[in-house]
Amino acid sequence: MAASGSIEAKPKRQGRPPTIANARDRILDDAARLFARDGYDGTSLGELAASVGVTKAAIYHYFPNKQEIYEAIIVRTLEGLRRHVSQATAATSGPEEALARFMTAHADFFEDHYDGFLTMLVGYGGMENVVMLAEAQKLRDEHERALRRVIAEGIAQGAFRQVDIDTTSRAVLSMLNWMVRWFKPGKGRRAAAFAQDYYDLMLGGLRG
Amino acid sequence: MAASGSIEAKPKRQGRPPTIANARDRILDDAARLFARDGYDGTSLGELAASVGVTKAAIYHYFPNKQEIYEAIIVRTLEGLRRHVSQATAATSGPEEALARFMTAHADFFEDHYDGFLTMLVGYGGMENVVMLAEAQKLRDEHERALRRVIAEGIAQGAFRQVDIDTTSRAVLSMLNWMVRWFKPGKGRRAAAFAQDYYDLMLGGLRG
Repeated sequence: MAASGSIEAKPKRQGRPPTIANARDRILDDAARLFARDGYDGTSLGELAASVGVTKAAIYHYFPNKQEIYEAIIVRTLEGLRRHVSQATAATSGPEEALARFMTAHADFFEDHYDGFLTMLVGYGGMENVVMLAEAQKLRDEHERALRRVIAEGIAQGAFRQVDIDTTSRAVLSMLNWMVRWFKPGKGRRAAAFAQDYYDLMLGGLRG
Repeated sequence: MAASGSIEAKPKRQGRPPTIANARDRILDDAARLFARDGYDGTSLGELAASVGVTKAAIYHYFPNKQEIYEAIIVRTLEGLRRHVSQATAATSGPEEALARFMTAHADFFEDHYDGFLTMLVGYGGMENVVMLAEAQKLRDEHERALRRVIAEGIAQGAFRQVDIDTTSRAVLSMLNWMVRWFKPGKGRRAAAFAQDYYDLMLGGLRG
């Protein structure tokens, strides 16, 4: 994801230009990979520094401690998910396509940012920084609200039955989020193909 | 759950009668509660012994270490789930009722054994004892197979559409299992009421 050799045009901290290109993102990418593989407790900042190819001091230049790195992964993952799904659902032919795109875009983002997603869903409850937690909750709420809006529009336009919106949005997000427990990227079908199956099932229902 | 003052008729270990009534179950109940509240790493055997009201030596009489307690909780929870759902679906009027009962019985058991369920779903991947892991996988497979059988019967009898059985069973279990992430027992509706909502949604589908 981090384009190697690219240059950060605007250093985020005035007066102290970063010594690593795309440093923040590269640290978060590697940390997510290590957390997903070895767990939060099983990952040291020394290992992270070695993985990024910098000193521990360089890591501390960007993040005060491991917990903040962990929380930054969660917020960055939610920001990315929100942006990706918004773009995918921006222009659709109607609520049916909007719902299908919401579900497949969510699954695509999950698969393409698997390590960050795993870190987020395993550890969402463990956020200590109240500002980061509030930001994460805001992003999660926006994502859920966007889904409820798609369902509500479908009902209003007669594309969907008069289903309960809370139940429906919860059902959709449960199916998508539970993927973290059984789906492994790169082992066959894309996550989005499973999401499309869920969509087809949800739309048609079971009744014979 | 453990009836206080009850007497174990048959000690499980020959020659050394247990000094605590229903000891194994009481240890697992309290351990599940502590794991669910403080996490596995945050719970010591000393705290567990104090909670049960016995010495650490008494705990060691039943379990060699914390890991085995943790794995015993997982296996006991899956055994109980399997038994409870089997009984609930033993005699039904047909596949529709069988599916509704499968879902509500699963949710009921989850709510009534919340601590064990939380311990299980947070830590299923962390089992080290290969015998216990094999037992847990067998029970989980049996549970999933029972669900797929209900769906297959529904399709065969024409009660359900020709849906994909894997997708459908995965969707149902995702909705039920994800409850561990948002449902809190005793705060309003029963988990089974949410499961019934999911069933209604699944059966009718979204199509208007």
